[in-house]
Amino acid sequence: MKISAQSAWTDVLAIRRQAPLVHNITNYVVMNTTANALLAIGASPVMAHAEEEVADMVGIAKALVINIGTLSEKWIQSMQKAMLQAKSCGVPIVLDPVGAGATPYRTETALQLLSMAPVAIVRGNASEIMAIACSGSKTKGVDSIAASESAVHAARELNKVHGSVVCISGQIDYIVSGDIVLQVKNGHAMMPRVTGLGCTASSLCGAFLGVNTSALAAAVHAMAVMGIAGEMAGELAKGPGSMQLHFLDMLYALTESDISTRIKLTS
Amino acid sequence: MKISAQSAWTDVLAIRRQAPLVHNITNYVVMNTTANALLAIGASPVMAHAEEEVADMVGIAKALVINIGTLSEKWIQSMQKAMLQAKSCGVPIVLDPVGAGATPYRTETALQLLSMAPVAIVRGNASEIMAIACSGSKTKGVDSIAASESAVHAARELNKVHGSVVCISGQIDYIVSGDIVLQVKNGHAMMPRVTGLGCTASSLCGAFLGVNTSALAAAVHAMAVMGIAGEMAGELAKGPGSMQLHFLDMLYALTESDISTRIKLTS
Amino acid sequence: MKISAQSAWTDVLAIRRQAPLVHNITNYVVMNTTANALLAIGASPVMAHAEEEVADMVGIAKALVINIGTLSEKWIQSMQKAMLQAKSCGVPIVLDPVGAGATPYRTETALQLLSMAPVAIVRGNASEIMAIACSGSKTKGVDSIAASESAVHAARELNKVHGSVVCISGQIDYIVSGDIVLQVKNGHAMMPRVTGLGCTASSLCGAFLGVNTSALAAAVHAMAVMGIAGEMAGELAKGPGSMQLHFLDMLYALTESDISTRIKLTS
Repeated sequence: MKISAQSAWTDVLAIRRQAPLVHNITNYVVMNTTANALLAIGASPVMAHAEEEVADMVGIAKALVINIGTLSEKWIQSMQKAMLQAKSCGVPIVLDPVGAGATPYRTETALQLLSMAPVAIVRGNASEIMAIACSGSKTKGVDSIAASESAVHAARELNKVHGSVVCISGQIDYIVSGDIVLQVKNGHAMMPRVTGLGCTASSLCGAFLGVNTSALAAAVHAMAVMGIAGEMAGELAKGPGSMQLHFLDMLYALTESDISTRIKLTS
Repeated sequence: MKISAQSAWTDVLAIRRQAPLVHNITNYVVMNTTANALLAIGASPVMAHAEEEVADMVGIAKALVINIGTLSEKWIQSMQKAMLQAKSCGVPIVLDPVGAGATPYRTETALQLLSMAPVAIVRGNASEIMAIACSGSKTKGVDSIAASESAVHAARELNKVHGSVVCISGQIDYIVSGDIVLQVKNGHAMMPRVTGLGCTASSLCGAFLGVNTSALAAAVHAMAVMGIAGEMAGELAKGPGSMQLHFLDMLYALTESDISTRIKLTS
Repeated sequence: MKISAQSAWTDVLAIRRQAPLVHNITNYVVMNTTANALLAIGASPVMAHAEEEVADMVGIAKALVINIGTLSEKWIQSMQKAMLQAKSCGVPIVLDPVGAGATPYRTETALQLLSMAPVAIVRGNASEIMAIACSGSKTKGVDSIAASESAVHAARELNKVHGSVVCISGQIDYIVSGDIVLQVKNGHAMMPRVTGLGCTASSLCGAFLGVNTSALAAAVHAMAVMGIAGEMAGELAKGPGSMQLHFLDMLYALTESDISTRIKLTS
């Protein structure tokens, strides 16, 4: 399949029609906004973290999104259980290693989760991707302090070891799979001023994985749709409050023409 | 008391004047938006879940809202403790069985909580109500896949066994108490695209219970006010982002004339 | 240093330039909105509560904000650990005793935390400040039922015992340090109708502490910026939904002239 504006639009339509159930075990900060983004694009979000039910919930989901933004031991146990179940059911997994590199606990947890089950897509900022590829990068809290380009090498390493498509988001998004490195240049400068848009990108990867078996295509489609909705929102926004609102409205109202005229996808 | 636009408006004024304290033990996804909805209508929300303090907090509250959207063992223990205290203090309880039917854990927890203390109002979507009435319905994550009408029989069963007023929300809301089945036909098609509006409806049931001893009237008033604010918001909204904003603004600005001209209440 | 519109603006510029990392251990209700407010003003928020990582996170932070809005035992342990680490690293601490006075658990926890490490700024509403100064005030849930003026005496007591700058927020904000009592009279009547603006004020205190070693100046600057952004937002808002949006937009777009023409600071 050729990855293009056309394939992205086909998947948006599939999401709207099928409303894939995306099971998120994610952080407290972004639960509301990622649920809203999934609903806006047309998916059906569920958040469930109890060890008693994660396996059952994975069993009815089309994708599992694991996000370590606000970790604790109990949650890690549930993430592990959910990932093992996803592995056994063939439910594709997205891993967002939020803040890896900022503390050893986050870096180690991200690595440990990555080794538990095949992860279809790892999405993070440059600092996070470099941290889990053992490139020794530091992260400032949850914000990246490395340039995306410098993380491409780390992404290749991660891909080689774990087989995951690796998505580095930033001003330019790099999506790495084997020898392929695709770039998405959509987006808006105000996006980093809204909390949780990185986490939202990971959840949208889950929505696209729910309708497309190619992890590479799903990651590119998700980043393109994020970036396009973000730049349309940014053109209307007066600050991060209105940015957040317009972003959800744009995800909801996205048209084929928005994607085909705006997409900046290069290899 | 006759349930009507007039009685709904009387209760809105009472909420604005008395600012009833509504104690919520609810899910992480919607805490912010339900607190904002309670403030917008004029109530005083509090969220507290520690076993050490739930009984004290219930002791000063006018209503207790229990929502199982993001469950875990510790939280269930606190919900139980809070419900027992509410029973002993005569504080009315609302139960929102979010996702019942999606996993056995949710269904069982909802049933177990329902048996702990008299619940004034059970509010859920059709799938959830059918699941806890043991009608064997399935739920897709937290979204309903059953029609509201088919849940009315289940609601009657629940009401007979537990005595609770049962509110099934959907395109048409059904409020069931004994032989009475009232319908509220307000609302807007975009409401299901904003996360947590069902949970918000449950919290508003709590606000109305805080000023009205009739659980039937409180449930109808809450659903009518939800639906009216929702349809006013939907007429202004361009997507789910602006929907959420206008919904809060409309709850805040609601007038007697908004209710009397828009309410669609039938028996 | 003279505390003035000029000094507030200097600090806003410093926050925008330095993007201080503010580590928040805060409540579930407000995590999203406080993270957004910190990003809007130009700071870099991080939320982390695991005992395994709080010390590491404090070690790279410029300020630590502790907020007891949704307490539990595990979280208190992490708060304690974070505060001890902050003490040993010289990272300034803000404490927000949300709901102190509403339950003994909250009052005792606030007092216990206050005694663990030097707290640079305590920020609360009048009821909360009176409760932890053992003035025997009652709190209704998380909303104040006492007038701010009557809490000034309690604030002096707290300041004498613990050395903290005490900030009482309300229609008039009082900032108390030793014999100094400064008043900030900015703000808007709709602010209490948006959940978490008090918690946001505490997090902004953390941002200002991240660039200014004077806790008194940081508290005054934070309250002035909150109040000014709040009144600019209130002039545009139609209800609490649009209030929240405009508040974030105004924090982001704040100019020197907004501060100098609007600030109402008296001693």
